[in-house]
Amino acid sequence: MTADLSRFSINQMTVRQLSLPELADACAASGVGAVGLWREPVREYGLDAAAKLVRDAGLRVTTLCRGGFLTAIDPEERARALADNRRAVDEAAVLGTDVLVLVSGGLPAGSKDLPGARERIADALAVLAPYAGERGVKLAVEPLHPMYAADRCVVSTLAQALDIAERFPAHQVGVAVDTYHVWWDEDAPAQIARAGAQDRIHTFQLADWTTPLPEGVLNGRGPLGDGAVDLREWRGHVEAAGYTGAVEVELFNDALWARDGREVLAETVRRFVDHAC
Amino acid sequence: MTADLSRFSINQMTVRQLSLPELADACAASGVGAVGLWREPVREYGLDAAAKLVRDAGLRVTTLCRGGFLTAIDPEERARALADNRRAVDEAAVLGTDVLVLVSGGLPAGSKDLPGARERIADALAVLAPYAGERGVKLAVEPLHPMYAADRCVVSTLAQALDIAERFPAHQVGVAVDTYHVWWDEDAPAQIARAGAQDRIHTFQLADWTTPLPEGVLNGRGPLGDGAVDLREWRGHVEAAGYTGAVEVELFNDALWARDGREVLAETVRRFVDHAC
Repeated sequence: MTADLSRFSINQMTVRQLSLPELADACAASGVGAVGLWREPVREYGLDAAAKLVRDAGLRVTTLCRGGFLTAIDPEERARALADNRRAVDEAAVLGTDVLVLVSGGLPAGSKDLPGARERIADALAVLAPYAGERGVKLAVEPLHPMYAADRCVVSTLAQALDIAERFPAHQVGVAVDTYHVWWDEDAPAQIARAGAQDRIHTFQLADWTTPLPEGVLNGRGPLGDGAVDLREWRGHVEAAGYTGAVEVELFNDALWARDGREVLAETVRRFVDHAC
Repeated sequence: MTADLSRFSINQMTVRQLSLPELADACAASGVGAVGLWREPVREYGLDAAAKLVRDAGLRVTTLCRGGFLTAIDPEERARALADNRRAVDEAAVLGTDVLVLVSGGLPAGSKDLPGARERIADALAVLAPYAGERGVKLAVEPLHPMYAADRCVVSTLAQALDIAERFPAHQVGVAVDTYHVWWDEDAPAQIARAGAQDRIHTFQLADWTTPLPEGVLNGRGPLGDGAVDLREWRGHVEAAGYTGAVEVELFNDALWARDGREVLAETVRRFVDHAC
């Protein structure tokens, strides 16, 4: 039996020890046809060269990570963030992906005003959404786990992400559903249905929840099957909501990064088949 | 001007480096008239001796921490948990407090079923709530931050805690509101109003949210004023909901524990006045 990997995409961060050419080779070796890319390694390799590399390798680019960080109060900082997000949209278009993932940003230093920060995100999207739409790029507002609310992303739930996204046309702004961030939320299945009904699920990402969390809580995302998340059930939720796009595996994990990247990719494919198909 | 400390209570864990007699002395020195106690140090000192000590010192005991861990599937484990919680109720009664805080427990090993675990908590409370009520002890279901959902507490929001508590009379089961756990939740103010209207706010605790979080995310609760939480606003929410009980400061913080406990208590009182009065 050959596993169906047609929906699988590997997020570059999962195997960030691989260079872009190594990633393309490893994908070919593992039967993987799609990747989610990150701006920093793409820029390092060269945007046009990266676009050519993935095109020549026959890889689909399912997402570009990431824009966002749109909560600044300071006008100059805000202007810099908008300019950087326009560049991110342009990069997505060059890479041939139609989804730019947004990590919205945390509280500015000294601020305790979560609703105010969320409002500034919506204000920034009013500028960015038409720009993205004109270039065929959809913005995916990603709710991050509430443990990141202060310093990384004031959008903590799918409900909040949709409240923002709904102010714009669905082909301009939707949401990213990542199991790592939403698995604890009993309201998330209903919000997935809401997002699907509006055609706003712009990407679906998998990671498992393992404990103990590491210092800084960034790089402890669990390999599929090792944690508390019923991955198959969450995949069922997005598919019941009409999602037919890629299922991207995005792990930030120090232990995985210390290993051979090709081996990690092959293992991730096996775990995807075992736990999410 | 003398600050009004009539509502202030120091949770023993904040200054766990102090023995019970040292804690009583430090409270007298700082003008603190109320304490939240923990079962382990109380048992170590001796339950009756601890009760006599706080009584002789004129200290009110605002809460006992903690019962709970009620999510076991295994019948023997469940029976042990119930027995331990009955003992916790008895201890609360001996110490003269009418509030036992419950940390409900995480997922049993191998389970990914959050709703099932929550249902077992309600089942256990059906046994424990009348037992507590007969002894004049109120159970306070504490929602813990969603980052603890897997391994410590499957009750992640005030809404979930109230959904469970509402199955029982308010004098038997209510909720604990701790800013550290609920500050990120935009629905929490409405849930506080709901809890207050039912007379189910059985304790209110303060801690601030600081980053980066430490490994294991247990012992990084921020000193009042150092973090992202608008403590005065949250105190306003519970008071607008009719809460007139103690405002307890409960910090788990390695840096505070490494310092002189009397100094930490005096500083905590000052920070309470500066940031939560």
